[in-house]
Amino acid sequence: KRTGFPEVIYGEGKTTEQVVKIFESLSKKNSTVLATRVTEEMGYQVLKRLPKVHYNKTARTLLWKKNPEPIHTGYIAVVCAGTSDLPVAEEAVTTVQAMGSIAELICDVGVAGLHRLIDKINLIKNANVIIVVAGMEGALPSVIAGLVDKPVIAVPTSVGYGANFKGLSALLGMLNSCANGISVVNIDNGFGAGYQAGLINKLMNPTVKEKNKL
Amino acid sequence: KRTGFPEVIYGEGKTTEQVVKIFESLSKKNSTVLATRVTEEMGYQVLKRLPKVHYNKTARTLLWKKNPEPIHTGYIAVVCAGTSDLPVAEEAVTTVQAMGSIAELICDVGVAGLHRLIDKINLIKNANVIIVVAGMEGALPSVIAGLVDKPVIAVPTSVGYGANFKGLSALLGMLNSCANGISVVNIDNGFGAGYQAGLINKLMNPTVKEKNKL
Amino acid sequence: KRTGFPEVIYGEGKTTEQVVKIFESLSKKNSTVLATRVTEEMGYQVLKRLPKVHYNKTARTLLWKKNPEPIHTGYIAVVCAGTSDLPVAEEAVTTVQAMGSIAELICDVGVAGLHRLIDKINLIKNANVIIVVAGMEGALPSVIAGLVDKPVIAVPTSVGYGANFKGLSALLGMLNSCANGISVVNIDNGFGAGYQAGLINKLMNPTVKEKNKL
Amino acid sequence: KRTGFPEVIYGEGKTTEQVVKIFESLSKKNSTVLATRVTEEMGYQVLKRLPKVHYNKTARTLLWKKNPEPIHTGYIAVVCAGTSDLPVAEEAVTTVQAMGSIAELICDVGVAGLHRLIDKINLIKNANVIIVVAGMEGALPSVIAGLVDKPVIAVPTSVGYGANFKGLSALLGMLNSCANGISVVNIDNGFGAGYQAGLINKLMNPTVKEKNKL
Amino acid sequence: KRTGFPEVIYGEGKTTEQVVKIFESLSKKNSTVLATRVTEEMGYQVLKRLPKVHYNKTARTLLWKKNPEPIHTGYIAVVCAGTSDLPVAEEAVTTVQAMGSIAELICDVGVAGLHRLIDKINLIKNANVIIVVAGMEGALPSVIAGLVDKPVIAVPTSVGYGANFKGLSALLGMLNSCANGISVVNIDNGFGAGYQAGLINKLMNPTVKEKNKL
Amino acid sequence: KRTGFPEVIYGEGKTTEQVVKIFESLSKKNSTVLATRVTEEMGYQVLKRLPKVHYNKTARTLLWKKNPEPIHTGYIAVVCAGTSDLPVAEEAVTTVQAMGSIAELICDVGVAGLHRLIDKINLIKNANVIIVVAGMEGALPSVIAGLVDKPVIAVPTSVGYGANFKGLSALLGMLNSCANGISVVNIDNGFGAGYQAGLINKLMNPTVKEKNKL
Amino acid sequence: KRTGFPEVIYGEGKTTEQVVKIFESLSKKNSTVLATRVTEEMGYQVLKRLPKVHYNKTARTLLWKKNPEPIHTGYIAVVCAGTSDLPVAEEAVTTVQAMGSIAELICDVGVAGLHRLIDKINLIKNANVIIVVAGMEGALPSVIAGLVDKPVIAVPTSVGYGANFKGLSALLGMLNSCANGISVVNIDNGFGAGYQAGLINKLMNPTVKEKNKL
Amino acid sequence: KRTGFPEVIYGEGKTTEQVVKIFESLSKKNSTVLATRVTEEMGYQVLKRLPKVHYNKTARTLLWKKNPEPIHTGYIAVVCAGTSDLPVAEEAVTTVQAMGSIAELICDVGVAGLHRLIDKINLIKNANVIIVVAGMEGALPSVIAGLVDKPVIAVPTSVGYGANFKGLSALLGMLNSCANGISVVNIDNGFGAGYQAGLINKLMNPTVKEKNKL
Ligand SMILES: Nc1ncnc2c1ncn2[C@@H]1O[C@H](COP(=O)(O)O)[C@@H](O)[C@H]1O
Ligand SMILES: Nc1ncnc2c1ncn2[C@@H]1O[C@H](COP(=O)(O)O)[C@@H](O)[C@H]1O
Ligand SMILES: Nc1ncnc2c1ncn2[C@@H]1O[C@H](COP(=O)(O)O)[C@@H](O)[C@H]1O
Ligand SMILES: Nc1ncnc2c1ncn2[C@@H]1O[C@H](COP(=O)(O)O)[C@@H](O)[C@H]1O
Ligand SMILES: [Mg+2]
Ligand SMILES: [Mg+2]
Ligand SMILES: [Mg+2]
Ligand SMILES: [Mg+2]
Ligand SMILES: [Mg+2]
Ligand SMILES: [Mg+2]
Ligand SMILES: [Mg+2]
Ligand SMILES: [Mg+2]
Repeated sequence: KRTGFPEVIYGEGKTTEQVVKIFESLSKKNSTVLATRVTEEMGYQVLKRLPKVHYNKTARTLLWKKNPEPIHTGYIAVVCAGTSDLPVAEEAVTTVQAMGSIAELICDVGVAGLHRLIDKINLIKNANVIIVVAGMEGALPSVIAGLVDKPVIAVPTSVGYGANFKGLSALLGMLNSCANGISVVNIDNGFGAGYQAGLINKLMNPTVKEKNKL
Repeated sequence: KRTGFPEVIYGEGKTTEQVVKIFESLSKKNSTVLATRVTEEMGYQVLKRLPKVHYNKTARTLLWKKNPEPIHTGYIAVVCAGTSDLPVAEEAVTTVQAMGSIAELICDVGVAGLHRLIDKINLIKNANVIIVVAGMEGALPSVIAGLVDKPVIAVPTSVGYGANFKGLSALLGMLNSCANGISVVNIDNGFGAGYQAGLINKLMNPTVKEKNKL
Repeated sequence: KRTGFPEVIYGEGKTTEQVVKIFESLSKKNSTVLATRVTEEMGYQVLKRLPKVHYNKTARTLLWKKNPEPIHTGYIAVVCAGTSDLPVAEEAVTTVQAMGSIAELICDVGVAGLHRLIDKINLIKNANVIIVVAGMEGALPSVIAGLVDKPVIAVPTSVGYGANFKGLSALLGMLNSCANGISVVNIDNGFGAGYQAGLINKLMNPTVKEKNKL
Repeated sequence: KRTGFPEVIYGEGKTTEQVVKIFESLSKKNSTVLATRVTEEMGYQVLKRLPKVHYNKTARTLLWKKNPEPIHTGYIAVVCAGTSDLPVAEEAVTTVQAMGSIAELICDVGVAGLHRLIDKINLIKNANVIIVVAGMEGALPSVIAGLVDKPVIAVPTSVGYGANFKGLSALLGMLNSCANGISVVNIDNGFGAGYQAGLINKLMNPTVKEKNKL
Repeated sequence: KRTGFPEVIYGEGKTTEQVVKIFESLSKKNSTVLATRVTEEMGYQVLKRLPKVHYNKTARTLLWKKNPEPIHTGYIAVVCAGTSDLPVAEEAVTTVQAMGSIAELICDVGVAGLHRLIDKINLIKNANVIIVVAGMEGALPSVIAGLVDKPVIAVPTSVGYGANFKGLSALLGMLNSCANGISVVNIDNGFGAGYQAGLINKLMNPTVKEKNKL
Repeated sequence: KRTGFPEVIYGEGKTTEQVVKIFESLSKKNSTVLATRVTEEMGYQVLKRLPKVHYNKTARTLLWKKNPEPIHTGYIAVVCAGTSDLPVAEEAVTTVQAMGSIAELICDVGVAGLHRLIDKINLIKNANVIIVVAGMEGALPSVIAGLVDKPVIAVPTSVGYGANFKGLSALLGMLNSCANGISVVNIDNGFGAGYQAGLINKLMNPTVKEKNKL
Repeated sequence: KRTGFPEVIYGEGKTTEQVVKIFESLSKKNSTVLATRVTEEMGYQVLKRLPKVHYNKTARTLLWKKNPEPIHTGYIAVVCAGTSDLPVAEEAVTTVQAMGSIAELICDVGVAGLHRLIDKINLIKNANVIIVVAGMEGALPSVIAGLVDKPVIAVPTSVGYGANFKGLSALLGMLNSCANGISVVNIDNGFGAGYQAGLINKLMNPTVKEKNKL
Repeated sequence: KRTGFPEVIYGEGKTTEQVVKIFESLSKKNSTVLATRVTEEMGYQVLKRLPKVHYNKTARTLLWKKNPEPIHTGYIAVVCAGTSDLPVAEEAVTTVQAMGSIAELICDVGVAGLHRLIDKINLIKNANVIIVVAGMEGALPSVIAGLVDKPVIAVPTSVGYGANFKGLSALLGMLNSCANGISVVNIDNGFGAGYQAGLINKLMNPTVKEKNKL
C-alpha cells in the first residue's frame, strides 16, 4: 500500500457491523482512516468503540488521524451556494483534511447573487486548488474559474428537481464550461474532488520528508 | 388573422420557390412579413423580386415592413457571449423588430469574463425585457437575472461539442436556473424568444391606437 | 436586496426548524415572505408562531404579506386541466399573489375537451399574462396560445406515467410548441412561472410609486 | 402468403436495381405491390419498365394495383398540419389505397389554429378511422380524438429542431395523450398507420367475397 | 357527453374519498362507470356503498354497468406471457368489457416458448382485435402480428429490470416492429389498449341501434 | 502475441495507405490476418499488392489465411432477417472463418414470418453456437433461443429509423430477452460476435495440437 | 421440456405463497430447481417445507438438485471486485451449479488494484469460461479478456451512484470493450451469465450420456 | 488580461479569414497564441502570413510562442491507446506546451494489453500530472490511476460506434471510476485537459519570477 495516503471505506451498501470492523482494523495499521456515506447509526457505533474518531453528521464521514495536524501548507477552498449542497461540500472538506491539507469552506455564494461571491473572492483566489460544489444549473465553477488562476475541481450535485434529472443538468453544465482550468468528478462525489485537490496540494506543497524522497 | 402581428414563414424544409411565392403573396396583404431559416439562395431570390425586403445573412432572416419604424417605446436587450451564438441572437433581434420594438444587441459578454458583463450591465438593466442567448453550459441567464429586475427569456443554443449533446446542456442549465424571473424557449429558437419579448414590450408600451382599443 | 420583491424560501431539503426560523426572521425585516415546497408539518409549526401567515395545503406554500391587497391592476390567468396539476397551479397562484398581482385559477380545461376551454376563453383572453400548467402530452399551452394575444408561460408537470418519464413528455411538448408567444419553466415549477408572470404584470401595471421612480 | 394484402417493399438501403427487380417480379404474381422510401431515381427506373405503376414523389412511394378501384366502402381521414408533415401523410394515403380503401387528405389543420380544424371537423368525424400526422409537440391527435368517436392512429414525425430530438417530443406527446381512442406508430411511419387503418376499415367494410368467407 | 361510452375515473393521485364520491355520482347519471388504478382500500370503500360494482384486485379496476351483458358480437383477444404482465392485461380486459365487448384472456404465451403460442393461435386468430401485453423485450406483438390478419394493439409493460429502463425496452421494441398491423399505447396502459380495441369492435359490430343511426 | 488467433485491423478512421501497410506487414509474420470496416478503395489497394487476400464487399472485410481450411469441426450458424442486416452478418461470418471455424449463413428468417424460421430450424439447432443478427425490435434471438439448446450470441444492428435510435431498440430488446442462453455484443459488432462464437467453438472442438497442449 | 436443464423460477413480483407452491411442485417432477430474486421470507418458507433445498442469502437464490454433484468437468471462474457486486456474482455461482458445473468465486479483484488481479490470474486463465461482474465503470472484463484466451461473459451491476445511472455506465463500458472475446448480459443479471457460461461448459465437457446422444 | 497565460482561439465555426485575423492580431500583443480545431486550410493560411507559427495537422492546432522553450520543470504524461485517439492526445500535448510545460506522449497503451502499459509505467509514474485519453469503454484512466500517485485528468473521446453514443460510454466510465485521483473533462476536450494539467504543473514548478511574486 502507498504510504502517506488515507485508507478509505465506502459505507454505502455495507452493514453497520462491517463498517465498524473495517474501521477498527484499518485504524490499527494505518495513520489515517476515512469512511464516507456513513449513516448516523454507523457513526455512533464506531464512536462508541473508537472515541477519538470524528463523525461529521452533515458530511456523513468518519475521520481518524493519528496526527490530526495538517502537514501541507496553503489551503484548498471548498465553495458552494447554500445548505442543500452542504453535505457534498463537507464530504470534500473532510477528505481534504484526510489528505493532510487545510480546507476553507465558503458556502453562501451562488451565481444569482454575484456580490456575495465578490465579497469572498480573495479567500478563493488565494487557495491552491478550488473545489466548487453546485447543483441545479451548475454554473458556479464557470464563474469562479473566470476570476481565478488556480485549478478548479467541479462537483455537480443531485440537488434540484424536474429537468435536473438527478444532477445531469449540473454535470453537463460543468463539462461544457466555457471557462478554462476546470475538471469534473461524478455527481455528489465530494470525496473524489477532495482527494484530487488534496493530491494536487500535496504535490505543490510536499512535507520535508516527501521533498527529500524526490 | 390577428392584426398588429407579423406574418411569419418558417423556411426550413421549404423550396426557394415556395418561400419566394409565400413571401410575395403575404407582403401584398399584410404590413409585416418575416421569414426565418432562410438560406442565402432563398434570400437573394426574394431580394430580386422584392428589393425593399431586408435580408440578414447571419440571422438567416428576411424582413419586410410597410412602416419600418419601431412603434413601441423602450427596448429589448439581446445578450450573447460571442460569434458562435450570433445567428440565434440576430434571429431574435430581427423578430423583435418585426414585432415593432427596438432591439439592442450586446454580444461579447460571457460568464467566464464577468468584467465585460459589468461594463454593459446598465444597458441591460434598462431594457424592458432581456433575451439571453447562450450555448455550452448556458449559465449566462442565471448571472444576468441575478443582476436585473426584468423578465429574462433564455435561449439555449446548440453551440458546443461532446457532452453538450446538441444544446441539451444549455437547455437543462437554463431550466434549472437558481435565479428568479427566467423562462426558456427551444434550443436555437431565437425567433420564439424575440416573439415573446416583443409581445411583452408591446403590452407594456402599447401604441396609442392599441391603448384606446383596451 | 431589491425592494418590492418577496423574500422566498425553498422548503425542500430544509428541516421544519430551519423553515420556521428563516420565515420568522425574514418576516421581521420584509413586507412579503413566501415559502414553497412546505410540508404540512412545517406549515402548522409556522402557523403556530405566526398566525397571520397563510398556509395553502394543496400548493404547499406559506405566504405572509404586511399588506395583503394586490397592488398591480389586471390579472394573471392560471389554467390547468384538473386535480392532478392543481398543486403546481396553486403554487403559481400563491406566487403571483406574493408578487402583488391577482390570479384567476381556471382548472377544468383540457385539450381533449375543447368545449370547456371555449367556455372560459374570454376570462383567459382578458388576462395580462397566462400561465398554463399541464402534464402528460403538455399540449394545452399550444392550443391556448393559438387563441390569445398574450404571453403564455408554460409549466410542464410530472403528472403521468410510463413514457411520460417524470414530466419529460410535457416539457418537450411545450418547448416544441408550434404556437407563438410561449416560454417554458422547469417541470413542476409553479413558482418560477408565477414569479415571471408577476414580474411582467408589475412592469405592465406599475404602482404609482414605481411609475414615478421610472 | 395471405391473399387480399399488398406486397410491400421497403426501399431504404436497397439499390435502385434491387428495387426495380423485386417490384417487377412481385407485380407478376400479385394483385397489389407497394414500395415505400423510394428515391426519385428508383421511381423513374421502375416507371420506365412498368409504366402502369404510380410514383408519388412527395410520399416517395410506388403503387401498382391490378384493379385500381377501392374495394372497401367508407373512407379514412389522413390529417396533418402542413407541408412539412406531408411526406409522411402521403405515405399513409398511398398505403391506405394499397389496402383497398379511400383516403381523404386534410393537411392544413394545426393545434395553434383551431378554427381551421373546426372547419374540417365533419369530414374528419365521418371517417371510419383517422390517421393524425404531427411533428413538434405532437398535440393534434389529442385535440382530434377529443372531438370524434373513431379510432385515431397517431404518427409522430421528425419535423422540428432542438429539443424535438428527431421526433421524440411528438412521440412522447402522443403516447401520453389524455384523450381516449389513440394508438401510436413509429416516428415517420406513415406506412404503419396506413396499414393498420386500412386493415381496420377492411374488417369494418369487407367486400362481399370476404364477408362470405367469414 | 357522448352516449354509448363509459365514464372513466383515473384513480392515481386521487384520495379514496374523491374516488368514492365521483364513482357514486357518475353511476347515477350514466350506464357504465369504470375506474382504473384503484387501490384495494378505494375498491372496498366503493363496494361498501355500491355493492353491485365489480372490483378486480389484479386489474385494480372498478366496473359498474347498468346492463352487464356485452352488446357487440365477436371478441377481443388479450394476450400476455405470464403473471407479471397480468395486472396490465386485466386492466385491458375490464376496459374491453366496459366498452361493451367480450374479452378472451390468454396469459401463458411468450416468445421464448412458441409451442404454447401455437396451441392458442386459433383463439387469437379468430378475435376481431388483438391486444398484446408484454414487458422485457416486447417481442410478442411482432410474432403474433406475423401470424394473424387482425389489428394488433401492443401494450409495453414496465416488467423487467436493468436495461429495461422501466418499460423503455418493450416500448421501443413494439414501435420498431417489423410486422405489419401494429400500433402501440403508453407503457402499462392496459386501459388505453382496451379502449381502442373496444372502439374498433364497436364500429365493426355495432348494435342494431347504432347501425340505424348510421 | 497469442498463437492460434488472427491478427485483426480495425479499418475505421485509418487511411487506405495505413491499412495496406499494416495488412502487408502483419501477413508476413502471422498465419491469419483480418481487417474489418474496410472501404472498397482500401480493399482494392490491398488486393493489388496481395492478390491472395479475400475481400468481401458486403462485409467490408479483408481476410488472408496461410491455410484457408477450417480447423475446428462443427459449425456456427449466423442468422439474420434479410438484406439490411447482411453486412453485419457477413462480418460475423468472415470473423468465424478467421477463427478457423465454418459459418453457415441463414439470412431470410424474421420474427414476423415464423414459417421461414421453422423451415431452417434444424440447420440452426445443429450448430455449436448461434449468432443472431437483428435490427428494429431485435426479437429474433429470443425466439431462436427458445427453440434451441445452444449458446446464442445476439448482435443488434442500427437498421431502422425513428424510435430505433440507431440500434438502441434492438440492443435493449436483446439485453432484456426472456429466453435463456443469450449474451449480447455492441450494435453492428458482427466482428465481436464472430470472435466470441469462434472462440467457443475452438474450445469445444480443439485441433489435435490444441488438445495435446491442454 | 428439454431434459438436463434446471427449472427456473423468477421470484420478483411473485408472492411467497406462489414461490413456495411452484418450487414444491417443480421439485417433484424435475431433477434441478432454481429460484432467483428470492427474499429471505420466501427462502425460509421454502426451507421449512423442503429442508433439502439450499438457500443463499447473498445471492437471493434457492437451489435444489436431486444429485448435488457437478456433472461437467473443468470450472467457471466468477470474478468481481468486492462486496457490493457479490449478490450478482453469487447469483451467477448458484446458476452455474444448477447447470451442473463447478464455479470458482474470485471476489477481491478490481481494475484499480492490478496486483490483486495478477495474483489470481492463473485461477482465472484455467477456467473454461469466465464471468466478470462489475459496477461503476465496468472496466474489469476488458482487462481480464486481454489476459486470457477464454470467452468472457460480462455482467454490469447497478452498483454506484450519480452518473452511473443505475448500471448504464458499466453496461455501456462492457459493450464498447476494446478487448476481444467479451459478450454482455443485462444489468444485475447474474443468472443470465451463469446460464450461458454453464451451457458452454456443458457443451465443452458433456457427460458420457450426453456425448453418446450426439 | 492575466499575464503568463496563452491566448486561445477556438477555430470551430469560425471562417479561415476570421482565424487568420485574430491569430495575427493576438500574436502582436501576446507572448503565446494557441488556436484549436483548426482545419488544414486555416492552418496553411496562417502559416503563409506568420511562418514562425507551428501547425500540427493531427492535433489541428496552431501554436506560436515568442520564447518556444518550456519554462516549468518536470513533465506531463499524455497517454492514449492508439491512432484513433491521437488527435485529442496531440491537442493536449500542444496545449501543455502552450502553458509552458513539457509533454511526453505515450500512445500505444491500452487496457486490453497490460504488458505494453507496464513497459511504460515508469515514464508515466514520474510525470507530475497524467492526462489519459481514451474512447470506447474509457477504462484506461482507472487502471493508470491505480498504479500511480499523481493526479490523472481523464479525457473521453468519441472514438467508437454503436452503444458508444459518441463518447458517452467513455465519459460515464471515467466519471464512475473506482480509482482515486481522477477528474474528467468534456468528450474530445484535449485542450481542457492540457490546460488544467499545465496549470497544475505551473503551480508546482513556478518560474523564479512567479515564485517571487508569491
Ligand atoms: N464517497 C465516495 N464516492 C466514490 N468513491 C468512494 C467514496 N468513498 C470511498 N470511495 C472509494 O471506495 C474505496 C473503498 O471501497 P470499499 O473497499 O468498498 O470500502 C476507496 O478506496 C475509494 O476509492
Ligand atoms: N418551488 C421552487 N422552485 C424553484 N425555485 C424555488 C422554489 N421556491 C423558491 N425557489 C428559489 O429558491 C430561493 C430560496 O432558496 P433558499 O435560500 O434555499 O430557501 C428563492 O429565491 C427562489 O429563487
Ligand atoms: N468491427 C470491429 N468492431 C469492434 N472492434 C474491432 C472491429 N474490428 C477490429 N476490432 C478490434 O480492433 C483491434 C484492432 O485495432 P487497431 O489496432 O486500431 O486496428 C482488434 O484487435 C479488435 O479488437
Ligand atoms: N434473475 C433472473 N434474471 C432474468 N431472468 C430470470 C432470472 N431468474 C429467472 N429468470 C427467467 O425467468 C424464467 C422463469 O420465470 P417465471 O416463470 O416467471 O418464474 C426462467 O425460465 C428464466 O428464463
Ligand atoms: Mg481561471
Ligand atoms: Mg432578476
Ligand atoms: Mg398567441
Ligand atoms: Mg374520441
Ligand atoms: Mg398480421
Ligand atoms: Mg435455449
Ligand atoms: Mg482474450
Ligand atoms: Mg492513484
